[in-house]
Amino acid sequence: MSLAIICPGKDPQPWIQAISKLDPELNIQVYPSIERPEDVEVALVWQHPEGILSDFPNLKLVSSMGAGVDHILRDSGIPEHLPIVRIVDEKLTWSMTNYVVMGVLNFHRQITRYQADQKRKVWDMSNPEIEVKVGVMGVGALGYDVLEKLDFMGFPVFGLGFSEKKDFPFPYYTKDQMELFLDQVNVIVCLLPLTPDTEDILDLEFFKKCKKGTYLINVARGKHLVEEDLLEALNRGYLSGAMLDVYRTEPLPESHPFWNEERITMTPHIASVTNPSAAAPQVIENFKLIKSNSPLKNPVNRIKGY
Amino acid sequence: MSLAIICPGKDPQPWIQAISKLDPELNIQVYPSIERPEDVEVALVWQHPEGILSDFPNLKLVSSMGAGVDHILRDSGIPEHLPIVRIVDEKLTWSMTNYVVMGVLNFHRQITRYQADQKRKVWDMSNPEIEVKVGVMGVGALGYDVLEKLDFMGFPVFGLGFSEKKDFPFPYYTKDQMELFLDQVNVIVCLLPLTPDTEDILDLEFFKKCKKGTYLINVARGKHLVEEDLLEALNRGYLSGAMLDVYRTEPLPESHPFWNEERITMTPHIASVTNPSAAAPQVIENFKLIKSNSPLKNPVNRIKGY
Repeated sequence: MSLAIICPGKDPQPWIQAISKLDPELNIQVYPSIERPEDVEVALVWQHPEGILSDFPNLKLVSSMGAGVDHILRDSGIPEHLPIVRIVDEKLTWSMTNYVVMGVLNFHRQITRYQADQKRKVWDMSNPEIEVKVGVMGVGALGYDVLEKLDFMGFPVFGLGFSEKKDFPFPYYTKDQMELFLDQVNVIVCLLPLTPDTEDILDLEFFKKCKKGTYLINVARGKHLVEEDLLEALNRGYLSGAMLDVYRTEPLPESHPFWNEERITMTPHIASVTNPSAAAPQVIENFKLIKSNSPLKNPVNRIKGY
Repeated sequence: MSLAIICPGKDPQPWIQAISKLDPELNIQVYPSIERPEDVEVALVWQHPEGILSDFPNLKLVSSMGAGVDHILRDSGIPEHLPIVRIVDEKLTWSMTNYVVMGVLNFHRQITRYQADQKRKVWDMSNPEIEVKVGVMGVGALGYDVLEKLDFMGFPVFGLGFSEKKDFPFPYYTKDQMELFLDQVNVIVCLLPLTPDTEDILDLEFFKKCKKGTYLINVARGKHLVEEDLLEALNRGYLSGAMLDVYRTEPLPESHPFWNEERITMTPHIASVTNPSAAAPQVIENFKLIKSNSPLKNPVNRIKGY
């Protein structure tokens, strides 16, 4: 019985330490030095090389190292019966919400305007607040927390998701009510999972339906956004600005036009970084649950894609 | 019976409109065109010329146009018996809290670091969060709301005030426990009233007692801060940065060194701007209460200074 850690380009050490600390007996093999593939029962993965999971004949479970599983599901070679789980971590949620609230407040209170005024030594007290109504696309654990915190702070909030919801405590719209949803809000937060349904959802057609001057915060995946369409939407005034944490290519190439676009505030995929110490207990727990054939923690529905 | 509006340098029109809308019968006289000083029973003031209130022989009440009353109390010519009230406005509180939370989050998530990285096209994912513990000096309506919102968001919060408090729902320190308070926190929010006790409280001696790298947010009054000491504290590393909304001289003179200091984020006294429409009902209500000899709304304790 063995756990395989497969995360090329990412340092596995913090994960090894966190898991060993909790279960010193657990055998851990780290890709690419997996000497006994037949022992591997659980694979803990982040952007694993496609097809590699079929090297493990006794694999019982695939666990994402983070909240997203799009990097797992794009591998069509994963056997259909194999369960997939993801990390749902309060700390992940906390960090994500803090980042989003920061983005909302910086737009609401126009921080970049005041920074520019400071540079030019301009004292301009006029219109200190932009009224904001916040629409959150994706109302899972992350989106729900954002809605709840912004609501507590007194901001009008609206949620949008792909399935019907009963007794949702905030105004809620489904995908076919998108235009109605966009009519309510002037800040859009993308927290959708990346699935074939949501890829490229933030395109010029979408931005055209937004209220003029809407502000975009994308903290989900780079592939939700058609990047050239964002620039076009800014130039046409559909959007007034954006805060982005994710990109189609990461790290963002030096030649990318986003770097020089003052209306875009960029961060390097740091909105919410999985903390191995906080996530390791879930990995261990699922390792035990799968061995006892019990229901798993944070299972992924492959049809839905999250 | 008449209301005098005295706010030299500030446009009285929004106040006249808001008050007239609520009580069209109320006679309003605006300084300096006060033709019947003997009719004035209530003075609504913002930085009135010292001594002018003794021109009104039948004055029964002085109301500040905002939350602060330091601009009233510095006038030693105000008769001792004359009650003073101030504006406590949920919208004022809401705006102030949003501003402070923005400042806390921007420090926590290092927005200025990422802005600088973007300019230099640097992709640096290391250490995305600074752990913050927030100390709020001044726990009146404004300070309390900041504590409550930051606590709900999951940040450790600590309050400091000048009087003993029983059953305060957050860790609370009095002025003589200042060092203990400063040992707990690495973000300091100044929301104190300006009184002889609190003037110049943010000086080099104070900053020396802060944890190295503490971040200062001053949204109270410019006179709380010894401005040259802030620059010294930044240069010595006692503080890592500051967000300031208020200054000893406003508008800030062009020659002031704060404009060019990158570690200081400046706004032009817009953290919380009294909205006459929201505040007018309190002015009218107190006008009626004073005439019927009833207890006033938001009375000021002159000994305490707030």
